[in-house]
Amino acid sequence: MLEDLKERVYKANMMLPQYGLVTFTWGNVSELDEESGIFAIKPSGVDYNLLTPDDMVLIDLDGNKVEGKLNPSSDTPTHLELYRNFQSIGGVCHTHSSYATSWAQSGRSIKCYGTTHADYFYGDIPCLRCLTAEEIEEAYELNTGKLIVNEFKRLGIDPDAVPACLCKNHGPFSWGKNGKKAVESAVVLEEVAKMAYRTELINPKVEETPQFLQDKHYFRKHGANAYYGQGGEH
Amino acid sequence: MLEDLKERVYKANMMLPQYGLVTFTWGNVSELDEESGIFAIKPSGVDYNLLTPDDMVLIDLDGNKVEGKLNPSSDTPTHLELYRNFQSIGGVCHTHSSYATSWAQSGRSIKCYGTTHADYFYGDIPCLRCLTAEEIEEAYELNTGKLIVNEFKRLGIDPDAVPACLCKNHGPFSWGKNGKKAVESAVVLEEVAKMAYRTELINPKVEETPQFLQDKHYFRKHGANAYYGQGGEH
Amino acid sequence: MLEDLKERVYKANMMLPQYGLVTFTWGNVSELDEESGIFAIKPSGVDYNLLTPDDMVLIDLDGNKVEGKLNPSSDTPTHLELYRNFQSIGGVCHTHSSYATSWAQSGRSIKCYGTTHADYFYGDIPCLRCLTAEEIEEAYELNTGKLIVNEFKRLGIDPDAVPACLCKNHGPFSWGKNGKKAVESAVVLEEVAKMAYRTELINPKVEETPQFLQDKHYFRKHGANAYYGQGGEH
Amino acid sequence: MLEDLKERVYKANMMLPQYGLVTFTWGNVSELDEESGIFAIKPSGVDYNLLTPDDMVLIDLDGNKVEGKLNPSSDTPTHLELYRNFQSIGGVCHTHSSYATSWAQSGRSIKCYGTTHADYFYGDIPCLRCLTAEEIEEAYELNTGKLIVNEFKRLGIDPDAVPACLCKNHGPFSWGKNGKKAVESAVVLEEVAKMAYRTELINPKVEETPQFLQDKHYFRKHGANAYYGQGGEH
Repeated sequence: MLEDLKERVYKANMMLPQYGLVTFTWGNVSELDEESGIFAIKPSGVDYNLLTPDDMVLIDLDGNKVEGKLNPSSDTPTHLELYRNFQSIGGVCHTHSSYATSWAQSGRSIKCYGTTHADYFYGDIPCLRCLTAEEIEEAYELNTGKLIVNEFKRLGIDPDAVPACLCKNHGPFSWGKNGKKAVESAVVLEEVAKMAYRTELINPKVEETPQFLQDKHYFRKHGANAYYGQGGEH
Repeated sequence: MLEDLKERVYKANMMLPQYGLVTFTWGNVSELDEESGIFAIKPSGVDYNLLTPDDMVLIDLDGNKVEGKLNPSSDTPTHLELYRNFQSIGGVCHTHSSYATSWAQSGRSIKCYGTTHADYFYGDIPCLRCLTAEEIEEAYELNTGKLIVNEFKRLGIDPDAVPACLCKNHGPFSWGKNGKKAVESAVVLEEVAKMAYRTELINPKVEETPQFLQDKHYFRKHGANAYYGQGGEH
Repeated sequence: MLEDLKERVYKANMMLPQYGLVTFTWGNVSELDEESGIFAIKPSGVDYNLLTPDDMVLIDLDGNKVEGKLNPSSDTPTHLELYRNFQSIGGVCHTHSSYATSWAQSGRSIKCYGTTHADYFYGDIPCLRCLTAEEIEEAYELNTGKLIVNEFKRLGIDPDAVPACLCKNHGPFSWGKNGKKAVESAVVLEEVAKMAYRTELINPKVEETPQFLQDKHYFRKHGANAYYGQGGEH
Repeated sequence: MLEDLKERVYKANMMLPQYGLVTFTWGNVSELDEESGIFAIKPSGVDYNLLTPDDMVLIDLDGNKVEGKLNPSSDTPTHLELYRNFQSIGGVCHTHSSYATSWAQSGRSIKCYGTTHADYFYGDIPCLRCLTAEEIEEAYELNTGKLIVNEFKRLGIDPDAVPACLCKNHGPFSWGKNGKKAVESAVVLEEVAKMAYRTELINPKVEETPQFLQDKHYFRKHGANAYYGQGGEH
């Protein structure tokens, strides 16, 4: 069932070790099949070297396991909540990638210091607050998803324009129109986090990129007037 | 004699170069066979490229060499002391991995800044004091083991909940229920040390992870109510 | 047409992932055939793994596409402007390499802290101002090229002696007598940027290399009295 | 002539890219054949990928080229001066390795912050002053060698106990009883430089390792009472 989806999600998960974003089993990617309303996700705690497409677990948008012999990622309720509320997305990714997680641990949002950031993220990559003891006790992973959705709404951030966030004391979540795009957001986030860290150490008084330069780069790659690339997606 | 044990210890030692935790011969792993009360350990100063399972040296819990044509690691008395006093452990690992050793050199314990730490270590990873001149002269490696055992007791730290420490001006020791788990503790320690370093540079006023979030992540993976993974160990 | 040129430019572009200077498609190299006044450049947004020599796009010095089924790099007008004004150069390279881009984001020029810098760059590697909103709106990529040319003129910098610059909030451009040399400038710039970053963290009061030592190293490798190497180029 | 020597020096030079100590052609290793008083050294500016044992250049202790179709490393007079004055050494190595060079650029000696340092270097790794304009003009490379020799004498440092130094605004030189040992000193220096850098960033008030611990580690590996390893050299 949904063999193509499982194959794609398997491949997107294998991009995590390929791009150096995971140690051991610390990461997971899912992708939603919009027609059936079912998403495939990595099983919990399985070594990337042993992973096969067939290990992917299928979950419907009510959170029921539809197929799969293994337990899905313990972060499944977070993925589910993002699919339910961010209408345009079709892929979700979570890692503990080193630089992005260091920013999350520090409790700071990543400002836009250059065009590498602006090419992919339109504005700050926000660091969201820690869940409360009550929220954790009630339903940790589900409430992580709710926090992301609610904070993006409260802050007026379009999840298509800023396809990632940092969860304080935890690490990054990212998303995109499919699993591969969600991983690409994670790769760029890690690179942007690395350069922002160094930028501040080189110049502690650094200022953000002027808005007009951010606009230029973002809209050179996104929207109706984009002219980067070969006419398809970047 | 104990060929399976030597094979496992050989493999656990080879994980050190694989995970980038050693330069030249700077590291060693041992594993205890509980039934016979004998542990296998890497020989001293032998190149990882030349190492074979048969080179592993067998030592009993009185510190006698039981088998082996080579000298055991010069850190053998430290391993021995840990096996004698930390009842639940079956593997010990020592490295000079770069970030953990930098923390050891700085003389600071690693605070819990996020869930990557909390997933594996319940509380600070302590940096223990330097041995005194007298302790060093009397029996350096043995007294290193005694210091670890005594400090964990004095500080009320459960070695199963915090399976590693830093020895000031030296480097990390880690442990686990077997050699492979001891190396895994060393890998996670290095990653946690790296991220703590960056976290403090990003935000010098960073605070520790709230206790309730540490609890959630630690007990999601450990103990009777763990639900991470496939029902076995993480 | 110009098959050798396309092959050389393809190979120079492939040096970017080889030396770790690019993530995804973030970089481009071109080389000018002086006789025909045509340069070959990487197509826009094409994955390095899929790139072939035949994908290179040929552009003349009036900016017309002479050959190629794909769109040229969106930075093509910058390359063009450099070829038109820096008479001695035959290759241009643009990357978002991590350390050089961090300096560009910080808005600081890279001072000469040692002979590694002096071997390749005679004096500071300048960080140029951000374009204005008007310059960006009018013609972003063309005006980036004009800014580089005008600033080097205004500051009295010889582009042969300082074959690279940083564009504020963006990243580095480098050049040389061909595509390969332009990439070599980018590799050295990245290494110099990395060491300057660490040098300032080790000693925040560090001073620049004495001029006579800079002179010695630069002229040991360049000009009539050079004696480094085997009598050809370094 | 001296084919074994050339083969060994070739292999020692190839360790530089293997251990990540060089970019392009920035490094060189030599080894002295004590019986004949001739040393073999890497040719100047030759790519490591193209290097063969036969390319090594033979030089006698008067500085005459004895054999070789290529120009020897431009640093040859520095090597020569070290062989002439440090009686016990048989190998010399120069690199621009990233962390050691950053310390050299910063103009600071590397203090002993831990046992990794103490295992190989007995005391500080000194950063020597920059040559004067006169010394550079007279004979840059020769006077670099003289400075190292004179400063070690003036500071009372035994070159066998501290087999490396930093030349201000330039980079490290290291040595040992043969070419391979000189490279090993360079590898350890780079690792020690990396950890000292991080140690100071983690704890700006860090103090040096107590002398008795330095003694313990150094003499555990060196001298008549050494007990590390298998009875040969470490």
